[in-house]
Amino acid sequence: MKVEYINPFIEASLEVISQTTNMKPTIGKVFVKNNSYNGDGVVIFIGLTGKINGNVVLSLSKNLALNIASAMMGGMPVIELDEISKSAIAELANMILGNTASIFYKNGIGIDITPPTVLTGENINLTPTKSVTVCIPLNFQGGESLEIDVSYQEN
Amino acid sequence: MKVEYINPFIEASLEVISQTTNMKPTIGKVFVKNNSYNGDGVVIFIGLTGKINGNVVLSLSKNLALNIASAMMGGMPVIELDEISKSAIAELANMILGNTASIFYKNGIGIDITPPTVLTGENINLTPTKSVTVCIPLNFQGGESLEIDVSYQEN
Repeated sequence: MKVEYINPFIEASLEVISQTTNMKPTIGKVFVKNNSYNGDGVVIFIGLTGKINGNVVLSLSKNLALNIASAMMGGMPVIELDEISKSAIAELANMILGNTASIFYKNGIGIDITPPTVLTGENINLTPTKSVTVCIPLNFQGGESLEIDVSYQEN
Repeated sequence: MKVEYINPFIEASLEVISQTTNMKPTIGKVFVKNNSYNGDGVVIFIGLTGKINGNVVLSLSKNLALNIASAMMGGMPVIELDEISKSAIAELANMILGNTASIFYKNGIGIDITPPTVLTGENINLTPTKSVTVCIPLNFQGGESLEIDVSYQEN
């Protein structure tokens, strides 16, 4: 795991979440995952190409997704994960990854990102192939976490 | 929907599936999807960047996935969607998209692809954002289909 490949994700996520939601999550212990994602939560999927080829999976509980969507919409109550709240969460992921790509670019590393896809379901299992997965946990007040899983190979 | 953006996916998928499995699916009616993917099947997810920015979702039943994995492994019986059979299906998707990217390249359209991710679960709902989705159904003998959903925006 190269620190210079992980730090931009951390820096961008803290910055974007703070700006868009006014929430101040803290970074938990970053670790290498051997297992794939398993869960019933909300998953946002974004692909990476360029110097770093892989995928980013942001996963969080439905409850935290609703709280974040509400905060992004100026505190408007959000009680259901409908098209509008999914769109808000997707836009958050898009902004985090766009900001991450800008930081990489400043560091001389060119990456491109795909548009986000929002995934919900039960017993979701995601198996990335041909890559190592680094998990960056963002811990929110109240004990909930948003995990950013970065699966990549270096080109 | 631009035909020149869809034909490479059709050409590549027929070619790769025929070569790797000896199966001869036929192309069904290509259509624009307004709804997102909903199902309990096996989904392989690959991102696209470059001239075409988006995501490709290959979806098929578990049964068809097992049959394809078996055919890819020389007819060895495959009764469970384990790491090996998931890896075979992911490799099929990777080859189809790699071949698709080569055809685009020959046509002067540069695209990059991400590594595949295999997704399983129940009541899976995939909502692509900011894009149109074109569905290419590949119909296999026995009545089962593999659907290739291409969600993209043009850059």
